[in-house]
Amino acid sequence: MSPWKAAKPGDPVTAIDTPALVLDLEAFERNLERMAAALRGSGVRLRAHAKAHKCPEIARRQVALGAVGVCCQKVSEAAVFVEAGIEDVLVTNEVIGEAKLERLADLAQKARIGVLVDNAQALQALVAVAKARGAGIDAYVEVDVGAGRCGVAPGEAAVALAREIAANPPLRFAGLHCYHGSAQHMRTPEERTAAIASAAEAARRTKQGIEAHGMAVGCVTGGGTGSFVHERDSGIFNEVQAGSYAFMDRDYADNRYGAGDVTFEHALFVRTTVMSRPTATRAVVDAGLKASSVDSGMPRVWRREDLRYLKASDEHGVIETPSSQALALGDALMLIPGHCDPTFNLYDELVCIRGDKVEAVWPISARGTLL
Amino acid sequence: MSPWKAAKPGDPVTAIDTPALVLDLEAFERNLERMAAALRGSGVRLRAHAKAHKCPEIARRQVALGAVGVCCQKVSEAAVFVEAGIEDVLVTNEVIGEAKLERLADLAQKARIGVLVDNAQALQALVAVAKARGAGIDAYVEVDVGAGRCGVAPGEAAVALAREIAANPPLRFAGLHCYHGSAQHMRTPEERTAAIASAAEAARRTKQGIEAHGMAVGCVTGGGTGSFVHERDSGIFNEVQAGSYAFMDRDYADNRYGAGDVTFEHALFVRTTVMSRPTATRAVVDAGLKASSVDSGMPRVWRREDLRYLKASDEHGVIETPSSQALALGDALMLIPGHCDPTFNLYDELVCIRGDKVEAVWPISARGTLL
Repeated sequence: MSPWKAAKPGDPVTAIDTPALVLDLEAFERNLERMAAALRGSGVRLRAHAKAHKCPEIARRQVALGAVGVCCQKVSEAAVFVEAGIEDVLVTNEVIGEAKLERLADLAQKARIGVLVDNAQALQALVAVAKARGAGIDAYVEVDVGAGRCGVAPGEAAVALAREIAANPPLRFAGLHCYHGSAQHMRTPEERTAAIASAAEAARRTKQGIEAHGMAVGCVTGGGTGSFVHERDSGIFNEVQAGSYAFMDRDYADNRYGAGDVTFEHALFVRTTVMSRPTATRAVVDAGLKASSVDSGMPRVWRREDLRYLKASDEHGVIETPSSQALALGDALMLIPGHCDPTFNLYDELVCIRGDKVEAVWPISARGTLL
Repeated sequence: MSPWKAAKPGDPVTAIDTPALVLDLEAFERNLERMAAALRGSGVRLRAHAKAHKCPEIARRQVALGAVGVCCQKVSEAAVFVEAGIEDVLVTNEVIGEAKLERLADLAQKARIGVLVDNAQALQALVAVAKARGAGIDAYVEVDVGAGRCGVAPGEAAVALAREIAANPPLRFAGLHCYHGSAQHMRTPEERTAAIASAAEAARRTKQGIEAHGMAVGCVTGGGTGSFVHERDSGIFNEVQAGSYAFMDRDYADNRYGAGDVTFEHALFVRTTVMSRPTATRAVVDAGLKASSVDSGMPRVWRREDLRYLKASDEHGVIETPSSQALALGDALMLIPGHCDPTFNLYDELVCIRGDKVEAVWPISARGTLL
């Protein structure tokens, strides 16, 4: 961990040491409001995905604006948010292994905790721990509605798991997890509309199958920043799990959005400095792939259409420039990260700015929570 | 940061919680010995690249086997190794900005510190801080010998910088930094041989240009795991900077090696667990791109030729399996990361195993040192 900090509250933005992860609070707050407005009156609630930011200060602001709680992907990640006072955390993932299940059950003594199930054998292990600990845990059946990752097929297999959960208190059958991950970055509105129509149909059929056994399906949850308007309008989902909406990375900006979409502003940046200027058309900045994750492609240079971030090595970014006048050694740039989630995971702190001042520095407390 | 640890010394390997970063100490120690043997008697010394591992325990072992010290890429990274007692650290990078330069000068009071220069204006800033602090810093001229990243062109521009350094004590002109990054993963031995022959020629010409002014070029440093035998045998380099050799990631294993190459064993793994088994040909493991960096491609499954790690999302890895019998829910696998450097940077701790036992857990103290 760095012995030094990139900034402290009160610093001018120009004094932020680089590379640093920077949140523009005004754009961020507008994004939070825009999501709240998009869901208001719809009967669909937000469970903000905290895997995107790993930052309790952000989760608190999401809850203050109406989010029912957060999603996490790991038990250790959930533990950080429970510790920070978030009272409703859904681990949107399967949890395998005795040690992890016991920690999950412990968390359920402190907050409302949910988890996914997509396998009968895994469910038995969860049941055993929940019974031994008397832990009331919300169990959701994960249904593969098109993403081709985890989850049981829609229909009978999901119905069987739901019945098994309901038969095993203190577990509670909480509903269906129907997240279509690969729909989020389909580039056209038409593709996303069709993908979520199909996902909603699979969710509806599965829900009806469960209701045919006299059981209620309390929650159908899914959706992300790219698709949530379709889940909202589906008549079957009653919870969406967007996370990136608050930050808007380059990959989400590369989607094309249509009239029915709700769009968000870039609020998250990697601030970087030109550290080498070897030729008239090449500048090298101090933010490489350890500063801005490249799993979803290169970052984009904010408000500098004339500059292109060509390639990243571990600690360097190569920028193509039109001329030697375009950029000088020591100049600072703001990069829009390719993918916000793994970029947050590279930093211990988030430098929050308002206008030209640093207003706050928030710990990214759940960085590195892999277990 | 996770409230829990993946393992503790004495644990059986089978009890390591996942995902975890695991070092096989026997393979690691053989790799260290193999590098020491490859350089013994050559007159070429090793300056191990600590950006690869960010772990002082590893740096100490490299120095104990003859490495002159380490390379780092950031001042904050260097500070962690100086704090840990490494006495000779070369920041193989340009350092721009008053705050960073002052920290660099402070480090030079505690250890032998080097840094690169590729620009006259940047050199003036370094000179000013070095003089103000009375800091004896080794300054190297970075020469672009083919990588197309930082560095001045070989020849005159480098000579001018070298003369300027020498004219400005307490800076010391320490030599030339001639690292050919893009040669490291050229796939054939012939390509790497040709690239380093060209780099060595550029280094030689530049060295002669400096010597023509009556100056000595103490050190010509460069080379990585993919190419170091060529720098070693060039007659011009007297220091190599390999880092990945100790771990051997998938990307380096994908190089083809010839008779003159020295090869290394896989010693670094991401231990992972099957957390979902949705179909006969698909398993999902708990190590995604936040557990094994995918900037250089997917990880490979260790000693399981029948399994293929197809794609990563943030917290999931999708594995293709030949049949439902091939892999069961809860099974553990060892993954060979695509790229060791950014994978180390995702973890707070390294779980060191010997045979079937955890022998030690080493802090990855310089993780996240970006400044």
